[in-house]
Amino acid sequence: MNFFSEDFMLNGKTAKKLYHKYAEGLPIIDYHCHIPPDQIAEDHRFSGITELMLGGDHYKWRMMRSFGIEEKLITGDAPDWDKFLAYATALPMAIGNPLLHWTQLELKRYFDIDEMLTPESAKRIYDKANALLASDGYTARGLIARSNVEVICTTDDPMDDLHYHREIKASGMMTRVLPAFRPDKAVNIHKDTFLPYIEKTGAKTYGELLEWLRARIGFFHENGCRLSDHGLDYVPYAEGDPAPIFARALAGEKITREEAEIYQTALIRFCAREYCRRGWALQIHTGAIRNNNARAFAELGPDAGFDSINDPKISENLNRLLNSLDETDELPKTILYSLNPNDNYTLATCMGNFQRPPFKSKIQLGSGWWFNDQRDGMEAQLRAFGNLGVLGCFVGMLTDSRSFVSYPRHEYFRRILCNLLGSFVDRGEYPADFDLLGKIVRGISYENAKAYFGF
Amino acid sequence: MNFFSEDFMLNGKTAKKLYHKYAEGLPIIDYHCHIPPDQIAEDHRFSGITELMLGGDHYKWRMMRSFGIEEKLITGDAPDWDKFLAYATALPMAIGNPLLHWTQLELKRYFDIDEMLTPESAKRIYDKANALLASDGYTARGLIARSNVEVICTTDDPMDDLHYHREIKASGMMTRVLPAFRPDKAVNIHKDTFLPYIEKTGAKTYGELLEWLRARIGFFHENGCRLSDHGLDYVPYAEGDPAPIFARALAGEKITREEAEIYQTALIRFCAREYCRRGWALQIHTGAIRNNNARAFAELGPDAGFDSINDPKISENLNRLLNSLDETDELPKTILYSLNPNDNYTLATCMGNFQRPPFKSKIQLGSGWWFNDQRDGMEAQLRAFGNLGVLGCFVGMLTDSRSFVSYPRHEYFRRILCNLLGSFVDRGEYPADFDLLGKIVRGISYENAKAYFGF
Amino acid sequence: MNFFSEDFMLNGKTAKKLYHKYAEGLPIIDYHCHIPPDQIAEDHRFSGITELMLGGDHYKWRMMRSFGIEEKLITGDAPDWDKFLAYATALPMAIGNPLLHWTQLELKRYFDIDEMLTPESAKRIYDKANALLASDGYTARGLIARSNVEVICTTDDPMDDLHYHREIKASGMMTRVLPAFRPDKAVNIHKDTFLPYIEKTGAKTYGELLEWLRARIGFFHENGCRLSDHGLDYVPYAEGDPAPIFARALAGEKITREEAEIYQTALIRFCAREYCRRGWALQIHTGAIRNNNARAFAELGPDAGFDSINDPKISENLNRLLNSLDETDELPKTILYSLNPNDNYTLATCMGNFQRPPFKSKIQLGSGWWFNDQRDGMEAQLRAFGNLGVLGCFVGMLTDSRSFVSYPRHEYFRRILCNLLGSFVDRGEYPADFDLLGKIVRGISYENAKAYFGF
Repeated sequence: MNFFSEDFMLNGKTAKKLYHKYAEGLPIIDYHCHIPPDQIAEDHRFSGITELMLGGDHYKWRMMRSFGIEEKLITGDAPDWDKFLAYATALPMAIGNPLLHWTQLELKRYFDIDEMLTPESAKRIYDKANALLASDGYTARGLIARSNVEVICTTDDPMDDLHYHREIKASGMMTRVLPAFRPDKAVNIHKDTFLPYIEKTGAKTYGELLEWLRARIGFFHENGCRLSDHGLDYVPYAEGDPAPIFARALAGEKITREEAEIYQTALIRFCAREYCRRGWALQIHTGAIRNNNARAFAELGPDAGFDSINDPKISENLNRLLNSLDETDELPKTILYSLNPNDNYTLATCMGNFQRPPFKSKIQLGSGWWFNDQRDGMEAQLRAFGNLGVLGCFVGMLTDSRSFVSYPRHEYFRRILCNLLGSFVDRGEYPADFDLLGKIVRGISYENAKAYFGF
Repeated sequence: MNFFSEDFMLNGKTAKKLYHKYAEGLPIIDYHCHIPPDQIAEDHRFSGITELMLGGDHYKWRMMRSFGIEEKLITGDAPDWDKFLAYATALPMAIGNPLLHWTQLELKRYFDIDEMLTPESAKRIYDKANALLASDGYTARGLIARSNVEVICTTDDPMDDLHYHREIKASGMMTRVLPAFRPDKAVNIHKDTFLPYIEKTGAKTYGELLEWLRARIGFFHENGCRLSDHGLDYVPYAEGDPAPIFARALAGEKITREEAEIYQTALIRFCAREYCRRGWALQIHTGAIRNNNARAFAELGPDAGFDSINDPKISENLNRLLNSLDETDELPKTILYSLNPNDNYTLATCMGNFQRPPFKSKIQLGSGWWFNDQRDGMEAQLRAFGNLGVLGCFVGMLTDSRSFVSYPRHEYFRRILCNLLGSFVDRGEYPADFDLLGKIVRGISYENAKAYFGF
Repeated sequence: MNFFSEDFMLNGKTAKKLYHKYAEGLPIIDYHCHIPPDQIAEDHRFSGITELMLGGDHYKWRMMRSFGIEEKLITGDAPDWDKFLAYATALPMAIGNPLLHWTQLELKRYFDIDEMLTPESAKRIYDKANALLASDGYTARGLIARSNVEVICTTDDPMDDLHYHREIKASGMMTRVLPAFRPDKAVNIHKDTFLPYIEKTGAKTYGELLEWLRARIGFFHENGCRLSDHGLDYVPYAEGDPAPIFARALAGEKITREEAEIYQTALIRFCAREYCRRGWALQIHTGAIRNNNARAFAELGPDAGFDSINDPKISENLNRLLNSLDETDELPKTILYSLNPNDNYTLATCMGNFQRPPFKSKIQLGSGWWFNDQRDGMEAQLRAFGNLGVLGCFVGMLTDSRSFVSYPRHEYFRRILCNLLGSFVDRGEYPADFDLLGKIVRGISYENAKAYFGF
């Protein structure tokens, strides 16, 4: 098979047929990402491929650092061409890294460039891409329009007034751009960000904070929000009264880890009940340990590529947390993500404990997240979901990305999905019934997400 | 390869030859299952395929819930046909799930049905299977007789009088049906089941409990028992005097986790020494976290499909536990199972620490258990055993099932085994020496278990 | 493919071309092993293949025990032939075990023996190998000379006077044999070996111990040492003053686990800073739990095949430890190894947090160690490195072995590497650009290690 042919990653004719006939043309529902709504609202024009590809992508920064490139050429003030060339120098050595595949797919789908990015081809590619980026149709909205995206869900703070989202809606843009609710700063009572945040909410008591959150959830709902997202260092679970803990934290007193867990448990449950009432889905992202490099954090701040997989126990607390909501029938649709791939089976069996009609897989194991967003990680997630649940009900891929050219990751996922399902058929483990297979492929690629989130 | 052809799961001609020539015709030794001895003794006749296939199988219930089916159609009072149709509706969407393979193998081997179970084929299949189930030779014993099973080991409480086992033996049934000893209720001092259980034993002191257990082990031995089974939430290890802890628990006092561990460690070791003396094998099943859904537990009780994989540390305590028995040469043959597939390598290296002649792999890594009882889980277990031990000494598959039509899971396992070994040969990693290969395949499929357990 | 053909483990023509054209002929840099320098210095002649192959290899002992062989035939006083035959009896049953592949490669590369070692072929093989071992060119140095080894790094105690290394250097031997620094006995304050060791150093205070260590590091550096190695049961991290803890330990007082961790953290950091200053690489080996069988330990001592994979949490402390060194720019080049394969992704993401120019992958995920030193373990490590780092910068394989005929493990690794990279190309995931591919293969097989360690 030729490098990056149209049959890229599709081994066997069943896989090829599944992808090209059922998956390839479907629209994208990107239900979780970090794309900046202001750049959509203002239809941002990129200064060039360096800004577009390398501007905010800490996956790529991290890879460049691994190759020994100086920070000046990564996040520093080096000229755009120097940065792009540095990236092109590192990339061919990153064999097996998804960045290589993503980059080639981005070059192919947006710039019609078929050749491998190397130091030799870099100038040609740089010039061709930059010429196109200066032309019509390559702004933020132009790139989205090229990507066949039906819905985008951004990630937003409860404090956000969502005026960019309203502007986007008012503009008549074809792709729906919806907010998603991420109240981490209100939950993380043990972090430095807590007090300044609570001050801005105006809440003086725990009860007032709940009122404020309920109002914000209502406001987000009116603006089309249908998902929330909770990022948890680990899954806490502790029973107790959160109100006095909140009061003491507000008074500047130090609280224990146990107290923090009581507060977090209570606040997550409060939010989850509000989500459930409105038919939202709850996403739980856990297992990350962030900002591990203090020197880099001082220079570059968070989200600059210095995060790791964490390895806490997860099963007991997660089961207890979901159960405590299910007991009163207030558990929302929930998608479970752990950054630690060792948790796949643990999460997939937890998922099975809280399924309830009428939802198809009310609880979901989320697609390979962050460090797992690559072929091996996706296959492991698909296999875990398949072995332990009903894979045909999976809501599929999301980009989780800050980039306007990351939509080919849906293509990447669909190829991996079709390749896996095709291999089942080729091995005689599933019939070559293309009505059934087509339904499964279309479902996971597009239709399940649409139905599950109610878009 | 056609769906469920006779070469199902056998990729490459070496795999086909290994399976068809060496594995296919061998009898089955099902050394660990949960089949009800009363139904064998009474030669139970099934009301239909719904009872047979869906009656007690929480794997299937769980899958149906994941598809969003109402409980009425799963464990409720809906008509049999409605339940069967509901299952047939969910199943084709469960691509990659072993239930799909097990169901097709059950239909094929017991009812000569080759077509995929779908909503369209469901009525035909239902009628054909039900007609056969009403005919001679499809009772509990008839199904066993069709399955080429030489030995079945059930799972029994020490309190059991084993009269069903004696009835079965007296009946002259070809398949030997032996009891296995599972004293969990006497071990789990921290659970609600403990006090009522101890009361029934009549033991007033720790010493009396040991006497009672020793007597029951002797009684089981006389009735052909050669295996025990301990289900542990996690592996405890703590030294101390269990007698006062037992006394306090009996007096209704609350005991600490540490005390519970002291008691559990002591009781497990007492039992293990008794097993060792009699040449029994000890099975340790760990890593499950059960009954996670309180609402479902209140409605349906235990073993209804609401269990998860747990993720505690295991290596240190397990090594200490086995060492404490080995030190005095009282460690029985032991089979280690963890529900968490992350433990495969940990267990396989622990296994290697306590091998002693004259046994061939005295300590064993058990075959993929429960959530791991599928192709990926079995392959992972076989690879771990192979990389870290002597795979040719593996005692192989067990059903762990409550069903009378689960014996094709041995076929499923043998196909996966032969496929893996065949791939080694096809890649040049093992010679195409069919004397050796045949010996290994026959050993793992049948002969090793027979020799290891002394049947 | 025929058993152990020249294309062994190479599936597909790209893999074959990569191995035979780029990897096969390259010299070996064995940067971490446990080969005894005295046997090199004295050009040890082996009494026969039993001593050579089975004399000190606890991997093989462990496998033999698993097969039920008596200790007399393993580490006891049985005749050499009986031991060799016992090994030959067990080996064919160990299908899937790397020992089978290693043994066949050793027989082929050193003794030109192509047939499988079985009880039938054992005598022929024994006689042929023993005849060669009695001939010229089969001494310790002769075997090394046959192995195309450019550099060997042994593992040495700081106390070692390195006179064997100097003798070897003075002898004009082509292969460079360099010491490596392993100060575990000075670090492990909680073990019985600590006090006798400190006594030998002559240090009366913590400060004096640091002076002694600094002097030894300097002495090792003068003798060509460029690597260190720290074996840690788990990764400790605790801040505090180590001096009083050292004083109390020296006075024979019992210290707590927390205190031990403070001391260990401090001492590791001290050493790491000294390594960094001299451009050494630090190896961290963690995740082993040793000497689990007390009876065997009493009979045979340590390193006799009774060790396991441990399963502690690792991410938080490892990140904190590396960060505490990076903060002051005193983190040396570091290679991370865990015996627990579940840690691959955790380590590989930790690696990414501390990359700094000008090094190419300053932090490395080490090649599959010990129980992971087999195809599945190596592939998992390569995939983790590839998915999460720049695989083209990987420093590659090491034997970690006590044996003079273990160098074919580099061949084994290179075959697995080329097979994996070839599969990427064959699936269209990397271009068939053999300039790039050749550079990557040569780099990982040889050139990267040479540049990274500065040999």
